[in-house]
Amino acid sequence: MNGDELALGKGRFEAFSDGVFAIAITLLVLGFQPPEARPASDDGITRALLALWPQYLVYAASFATVGIMWINHHALFGKLTTVPHSIILVNLALLMVVSFLPFPTSVLGRFGLMRSPVIYYGLTLIAVSLCFGALQYMVSLQPGERGSVIDFLRRRNVWNTMGIIAYAAGIPIAYYSPLATIVIYAAVALYYMLPVGIRAATVANRPNA
Amino acid sequence: MNGDELALGKGRFEAFSDGVFAIAITLLVLGFQPPEARPASDDGITRALLALWPQYLVYAASFATVGIMWINHHALFGKLTTVPHSIILVNLALLMVVSFLPFPTSVLGRFGLMRSPVIYYGLTLIAVSLCFGALQYMVSLQPGERGSVIDFLRRRNVWNTMGIIAYAAGIPIAYYSPLATIVIYAAVALYYMLPVGIRAATVANRPNA
Amino acid sequence: MNGDELALGKGRFEAFSDGVFAIAITLLVLGFQPPEARPASDDGITRALLALWPQYLVYAASFATVGIMWINHHALFGKLTTVPHSIILVNLALLMVVSFLPFPTSVLGRFGLMRSPVIYYGLTLIAVSLCFGALQYMVSLQPGERGSVIDFLRRRNVWNTMGIIAYAAGIPIAYYSPLATIVIYAAVALYYMLPVGIRAATVANRPNA
Amino acid sequence: MNGDELALGKGRFEAFSDGVFAIAITLLVLGFQPPEARPASDDGITRALLALWPQYLVYAASFATVGIMWINHHALFGKLTTVPHSIILVNLALLMVVSFLPFPTSVLGRFGLMRSPVIYYGLTLIAVSLCFGALQYMVSLQPGERGSVIDFLRRRNVWNTMGIIAYAAGIPIAYYSPLATIVIYAAVALYYMLPVGIRAATVANRPNA
Repeated sequence: MNGDELALGKGRFEAFSDGVFAIAITLLVLGFQPPEARPASDDGITRALLALWPQYLVYAASFATVGIMWINHHALFGKLTTVPHSIILVNLALLMVVSFLPFPTSVLGRFGLMRSPVIYYGLTLIAVSLCFGALQYMVSLQPGERGSVIDFLRRRNVWNTMGIIAYAAGIPIAYYSPLATIVIYAAVALYYMLPVGIRAATVANRPNA
Repeated sequence: MNGDELALGKGRFEAFSDGVFAIAITLLVLGFQPPEARPASDDGITRALLALWPQYLVYAASFATVGIMWINHHALFGKLTTVPHSIILVNLALLMVVSFLPFPTSVLGRFGLMRSPVIYYGLTLIAVSLCFGALQYMVSLQPGERGSVIDFLRRRNVWNTMGIIAYAAGIPIAYYSPLATIVIYAAVALYYMLPVGIRAATVANRPNA
Repeated sequence: MNGDELALGKGRFEAFSDGVFAIAITLLVLGFQPPEARPASDDGITRALLALWPQYLVYAASFATVGIMWINHHALFGKLTTVPHSIILVNLALLMVVSFLPFPTSVLGRFGLMRSPVIYYGLTLIAVSLCFGALQYMVSLQPGERGSVIDFLRRRNVWNTMGIIAYAAGIPIAYYSPLATIVIYAAVALYYMLPVGIRAATVANRPNA
Repeated sequence: MNGDELALGKGRFEAFSDGVFAIAITLLVLGFQPPEARPASDDGITRALLALWPQYLVYAASFATVGIMWINHHALFGKLTTVPHSIILVNLALLMVVSFLPFPTSVLGRFGLMRSPVIYYGLTLIAVSLCFGALQYMVSLQPGERGSVIDFLRRRNVWNTMGIIAYAAGIPIAYYSPLATIVIYAAVALYYMLPVGIRAATVANRPNA
């Protein structure tokens, strides 16, 4: 009576999620608009392409964030075989904010390192983070889960908390330096790229898996 | 002699359908255009991003509608193993209207809560609904179907009828309040997100599955 | 020594092809641009949306063409298990022209039923047709193929020839009536949608499969 | 302790990579913008479409480059069964530059055969090449690899080196003739399309595989 008739086999669930992640990550490039200077000189085009440097940084940060989210998404569902309706819905919310990410990325690209586009971008990252945290929580409640997954999630919650704190801290920092905020967000993405072992050693003392 | 030579294994049929759903859902974000104010102040950008609120609502409603359509699509084909030519064609028509959805979504985004973009959006939702109903009908005619699928479809037909009635009712309502229509459409999406059990209890008395 | 080390398992080959088909078909919607009338009245928007009718026709024709190409693509590789390097390359050429289709579709959408956009669209359809014919020819040369595939291909060649003749005939016709050409192209798509049996009965007398 | 808990099964790793390749290759078409001439004559549109010829060349070169990269990507992982965290990250970097390719392609499309867009395009191809080389190197370090893969990689390194040398040589050549650089880049793509056997015979004397 609880909607489990709509539970999905993990295969198609992951295929759809992978599809959305792959498309969202690839649409990030559409935030780049060719320079407008039309009777253009080579020097003018070169300058315009170099002037896009904050957008290159944001593109890399967004790409890394979605890419890492995808790797974590895989790890999260590694041991499940079917996915209940409730998790499908939270996952849909996660995909909705991830799919939205190309928009704040392109706003940032258009206006450069100003305060409000950076905050807008940061708020989106916070929303992504909250949805992913909710998904982690719901998976951890699944009855059939093995202890090692719980253990994995406990580590991940520390990890995820660090991300959301950094994202939130970036908001007031943007009032002083939008560039500092972007550097922090890029650093979070880099940090998440470290192998779990090294990363964990920086935040918690835990027995080896 | 009836085209069954072109019947597809369900795997590739679902992969293609999933691909189109995933791309259509992700293209919805392209309806968002960065604000045009070029010598822009932070306050101007903030106001412009807040002024997009009807588009955020429509984005969420469209995303939820396609997402739920995808979940239902999976449930519909859950027990089939091959997909005959006729169903492939109706499915292609469904994918055509689903793929079209980003356009009315972006029209709504550009003009805001005016009557004609809302009606245009509503007519597209009705077309999606009719195609999905036709698909359900054709699957229910498949000889190898189990009783439980029939039973499932009977429930779904009630359910689907409710959606199309709400979509149609939104058209005249838009003459009085475009916002009311969008709220109704978002409510339909939310309703479809409820687990089948709870939802069914609100429309029909049925034995437990 | 003939590149077969690069032969692909059919699974990944089909997955990539399906992906490109699915994306190309979904990008067709990007040819629709929201009407530009900015201080817009409801009547003005309605008129602008209705004035897009040739683009709706072209969208449907393009969508049907790619959709049918995808179904045929699946049928073509139905019996192969690995795909040699040479076929991968011809397939890449097919995907290149199919992926290009959204551009002539959007040119047609922007300029409406004028002669040159219609011819441009027709030339692209001819290129798609030639690539698909080349692919059919190369698959028919594969040593392991069963007789029924050969038989299937023989029928398909008649069929494919009909399509390319109609596409080519549309070019001179566009000098008199661009609309007539689009109607012919839409009719070809509809014809290809008929189940193989009925369609074959209209062009050739053949033993039942 | 080295992050291998996040190793992926090859299936989902390849599915995601294929998705990104398929989307990046299909987004290349978005670099084409319909001609702007609005009160347009047939002759004006025809001239505008013909004037796009450098973009057709670049589209074909970019499409071939990504397509071949995809084929090679498949061959590279042919014998692995799981993919360790470190390779996932390098792969993510490769996908990031491949996904970026539609932007330099559209810059080239907008400005035509000028020096700076051609160099920008060439630098992106060099970045793609370096990432792919790094990926090849990391796969060759994998302990479980069979000798034939090592052998395959040794050949590929020669091959990959040729590509990057041609890409780099194109940069100074663009100062004299941007067209010559594009022709070289298209020739590299064509060369990579040759079956491995023929290609290898042109660069190295090696025992048959």
